[in-house]
Amino acid sequence: MATRERPRRVTIADVARHAGVSTTAVSKVLRSAYGVSPAMRERVKAAIEELGYRPHAAARAMRGRTFTIGVLLPDLRNPFFPDILDGLSEQLAGTDYQVIMVQGGPDVTAETRAIDALVDRQVDGILMIAPRVRRVRLEDVAAQMPTVVLGLHEKSALYDVVHDDDELGAELVVRHLIGLGHRRIAHIGYTPGSRERAVGVLDAIRAETYARVMREHGLQSQIAVARAAYTEEAGYRGARELLERSPRPTAIFAGADLAALGALRALHEAGLSVPADVSLAGYDNTRLAALSSISLTSVDQDGAVMGRTAGRLLLERIEGRTSSVRFSVTPSLVPRRSTGPPAPEA
Amino acid sequence: MATRERPRRVTIADVARHAGVSTTAVSKVLRSAYGVSPAMRERVKAAIEELGYRPHAAARAMRGRTFTIGVLLPDLRNPFFPDILDGLSEQLAGTDYQVIMVQGGPDVTAETRAIDALVDRQVDGILMIAPRVRRVRLEDVAAQMPTVVLGLHEKSALYDVVHDDDELGAELVVRHLIGLGHRRIAHIGYTPGSRERAVGVLDAIRAETYARVMREHGLQSQIAVARAAYTEEAGYRGARELLERSPRPTAIFAGADLAALGALRALHEAGLSVPADVSLAGYDNTRLAALSSISLTSVDQDGAVMGRTAGRLLLERIEGRTSSVRFSVTPSLVPRRSTGPPAPEA
Repeated sequence: MATRERPRRVTIADVARHAGVSTTAVSKVLRSAYGVSPAMRERVKAAIEELGYRPHAAARAMRGRTFTIGVLLPDLRNPFFPDILDGLSEQLAGTDYQVIMVQGGPDVTAETRAIDALVDRQVDGILMIAPRVRRVRLEDVAAQMPTVVLGLHEKSALYDVVHDDDELGAELVVRHLIGLGHRRIAHIGYTPGSRERAVGVLDAIRAETYARVMREHGLQSQIAVARAAYTEEAGYRGARELLERSPRPTAIFAGADLAALGALRALHEAGLSVPADVSLAGYDNTRLAALSSISLTSVDQDGAVMGRTAGRLLLERIEGRTSSVRFSVTPSLVPRRSTGPPAPEA
Repeated sequence: MATRERPRRVTIADVARHAGVSTTAVSKVLRSAYGVSPAMRERVKAAIEELGYRPHAAARAMRGRTFTIGVLLPDLRNPFFPDILDGLSEQLAGTDYQVIMVQGGPDVTAETRAIDALVDRQVDGILMIAPRVRRVRLEDVAAQMPTVVLGLHEKSALYDVVHDDDELGAELVVRHLIGLGHRRIAHIGYTPGSRERAVGVLDAIRAETYARVMREHGLQSQIAVARAAYTEEAGYRGARELLERSPRPTAIFAGADLAALGALRALHEAGLSVPADVSLAGYDNTRLAALSSISLTSVDQDGAVMGRTAGRLLLERIEGRTSSVRFSVTPSLVPRRSTGPPAPEA
């Protein structure tokens, strides 16, 4: 099998290292931003020339438009992402833009390769959904092409961010369960990797908010988190882990509907009924949650609006906007039959 | 919004028209196949030169490898396709190849644009899953790059095909329902469009097989088909249409699990229980079918094996194989709780 190595793309981090300055300084030079000394500008420009780094504007001018938007999806199985893609397609309808997608895969290395594949395909703009790579990688991409990041809460001068108010969403779920009378409420979600960003990602915010609301209600001793990715399989394993506790939780808040489906499988296997034995809630209000045989309490964050907005922001950047914006969707709770009052203690 | 037109890519059909020969003749010349007269070769080569058509080998030599495999997905929401993609990724693991994807969209025009977007991105090979465009378009792509088509049963000299034995799969379902005692068995599936291929596609084969098995059991008067795409929404509408019949069907065979989920929603809304009032079966044996709260009888066609095989065939073609192969998976029935004997007639 062919395994010839491609030459590694020169990154903004390489330029910064070569010039002995910060990546922020390089970004400023690239954007011709205010507050860069002439000496700094010279050093950075020399490093760019020596390394052959092709910043966004120059590269685009060289190649012309491709009328392609690249999208990074973390996982093809999550039924929330097609909602986002539908919104994006709706926004792009009537334009010449086509969407191409890559799947991020299970770890940061795979995600980095997937992002590189998009960049190499010379897309005109890129939408990264819940990326796990470090901020410097995102800024490197954003320095090369119009970039919108969905699901991160950190602002950047180089890219736009679109997210829902994950704090509010998680609060709505935990308060709903507490209001029903639950105290032993467990959470499935957020598994930080060693090379991944630790703050600002949607799953970390949901997990932190869960713990905060529990503490605010004097339930700190009941906090139980199964660290698991937002996949069906991880949700299954996470629920099995939580159900081994004694006493077991009376309610489980899974950080995503897909993980909740896995938890549902674990609950059924354990012979537990929902919500009589254990209440279960998810997040994303996917179409699966609405199926009457599942009827999962969830949080609606309107993926179509997020996708439409991301598309609009990308088109604006392609047309020349360089200032960064942040767009937040206000989520709402959709209570269904999977949550109810806890059974009386035996 | 930018709507500048790209120059249309010269196709194999253009070359054939210009040279006044068939597309098959052009393909033969491109492949240096046996049985082409020198005069024919000259005419085709002149047309290729005049139109600037870049056949696969020449184009690839010009640009070198991109180490990218392009995948056409009909629909991001269908939970069967990630099984295929998982198999493909497994096959490509350890190579430098990355997968980029496009979504085919609702009609042939959208699908054609999506395919063009992949071709324009200069992938090294392309996997088209259940494409709806006419054969000439597929052959046009296959003349330019290594191509594997999944879900079509028609052989081609230019591309490989991977499919399951859809006839056997559909037979297994209909015989299963007849064996349980059902006679009023309805089908949801196959909706031919005016510009689409009418034969050889998996959904047409499943629908035809359903009708054939019904006839073979003397049930031709009971044949009822709701023509609907393999989507949740179409399955929902299809089931509503079927439930308006009097007497209503006692069993529904949806051509795909995703359509069956839509049918399940319609059944629940109508206050009907599964399988007591209506039995329901799908196709694809997706993870959703296995969820115990859904427990859908379905047909397993092992998408991972299909994806791995498609990946292997693409790599072989990239390495130089030009002969065409066909790979068929033998499906099996997975009976679950959604099918049972019909209720005694009132």
